[in-house]
Amino acid sequence: MNIDIQLVPFVPNPHLLFDRVVVVIDVLRATSVIIHAMSEGALEIIPVVTAEEAFQMAKAFPRGSVLLGGERESGNIPGFDLGNSPREYVAEKVKEKKLILATTNGTKAFHLVSSGKEIFVGSFLNIGAVAERCLESERDLLIFASGDDGSFSLEDTVSGGMLIELLARRGKKSVFLTDASQCAQILYQRFKDNLLEAFHLSRHGKELISRGFEDDLVYCAQIDITNIVPEFKVEVIRLSDCGMRNGE
Amino acid sequence: MNIDIQLVPFVPNPHLLFDRVVVVIDVLRATSVIIHAMSEGALEIIPVVTAEEAFQMAKAFPRGSVLLGGERESGNIPGFDLGNSPREYVAEKVKEKKLILATTNGTKAFHLVSSGKEIFVGSFLNIGAVAERCLESERDLLIFASGDDGSFSLEDTVSGGMLIELLARRGKKSVFLTDASQCAQILYQRFKDNLLEAFHLSRHGKELISRGFEDDLVYCAQIDITNIVPEFKVEVIRLSDCGMRNGE
Repeated sequence: MNIDIQLVPFVPNPHLLFDRVVVVIDVLRATSVIIHAMSEGALEIIPVVTAEEAFQMAKAFPRGSVLLGGERESGNIPGFDLGNSPREYVAEKVKEKKLILATTNGTKAFHLVSSGKEIFVGSFLNIGAVAERCLESERDLLIFASGDDGSFSLEDTVSGGMLIELLARRGKKSVFLTDASQCAQILYQRFKDNLLEAFHLSRHGKELISRGFEDDLVYCAQIDITNIVPEFKVEVIRLSDCGMRNGE
Repeated sequence: MNIDIQLVPFVPNPHLLFDRVVVVIDVLRATSVIIHAMSEGALEIIPVVTAEEAFQMAKAFPRGSVLLGGERESGNIPGFDLGNSPREYVAEKVKEKKLILATTNGTKAFHLVSSGKEIFVGSFLNIGAVAERCLESERDLLIFASGDDGSFSLEDTVSGGMLIELLARRGKKSVFLTDASQCAQILYQRFKDNLLEAFHLSRHGKELISRGFEDDLVYCAQIDITNIVPEFKVEVIRLSDCGMRNGE
């Protein structure tokens, strides 16, 4: 298995997507939101790039049947039902609902990698289950770190590094790492005993703290609190059959 | 001083070049070659992107007054005087000569960052002197890691990380690091006691070893063997007055 990671969120070379598993990571906070919302029973999530697109898309559904969630520059969007704090996405609000999600980095990422063979949603919250799915698929892997407004993000790369560490430990000699994958693995090893430290050092983590979202950092630094692996397919994120395990 | 590092070698955002010092790094081997050749007395070096461009440019100079150097995919170029091994660029060959240099990654990098305010040539060979120049200029800094055929390169980032470490140590609280700069610094800290290990783990390092250039890796892993800081200005690399120190 070849493992590469896109450290800066531009459109990947087509050969890095062809017939590959892609794992999209936006730890703070889009993929953590998606994983949490689906673990609370959300039916499907449609990731869009702008708030305008979200409002436009909502018109295609019966009034009241979808919820709009997301943020712009870490703030709430007027007219949206939910922000971008995972803890808002509780069962009472999202169970059996469709969501349309618009965020700064994470939701765009899905569209950049849409030609991948299988596209999974990853964060620390489900990292072990994502590693299992990658091993089962036996395809080469591209991890897509959604980044920070077009730039490298420390927290997404540390999370990608943890996935690489898990796969390298299990796959041993059959796993081949690019220079970028080795970089991510080293970053994970640096922060593995204190993931929150990486969040506190990162630009985006600092911004979230300054806006009063420090509790979100603590929430998003939790490892393996669910086994679900949401999958992006034909513009929509759902739980595939394999994405729901252990009775969840 | 704000310090950023471009981890993947695409054209930087213009705001990252405006009024900034840029340090171009291609440890294996273009910037190591340039620094070594100038320390051996080469007058000036013109970095070009292709072998064809090098042949074309040579026609503008009197026959025999310039040397052509460089490589394609780590191999020599037919018709060129020199390859891309720093140890070839000895005084007997290059003293008081003009060189035209064409390599896979490093020479292209200079053209991508040409709108920077001051553009220095860095590698482990002169890293301390480069740090001094950056501190003297007091401008914000962009380190440009030339990468590996368009991708992230471990060795260039480790070298950029050493420059960041030196500047952060000297500048203390007045130095601000982006997430990417913190990443490079962590990579340097991982390999600081054994730079050769980083070369041996990197894709390009492995390729050079397989082609018989292991001695170049040992050569390029030397720290501070010269104090010269070549500067790229108006398409040409020369030693500026400040670039020659301590009687060199």
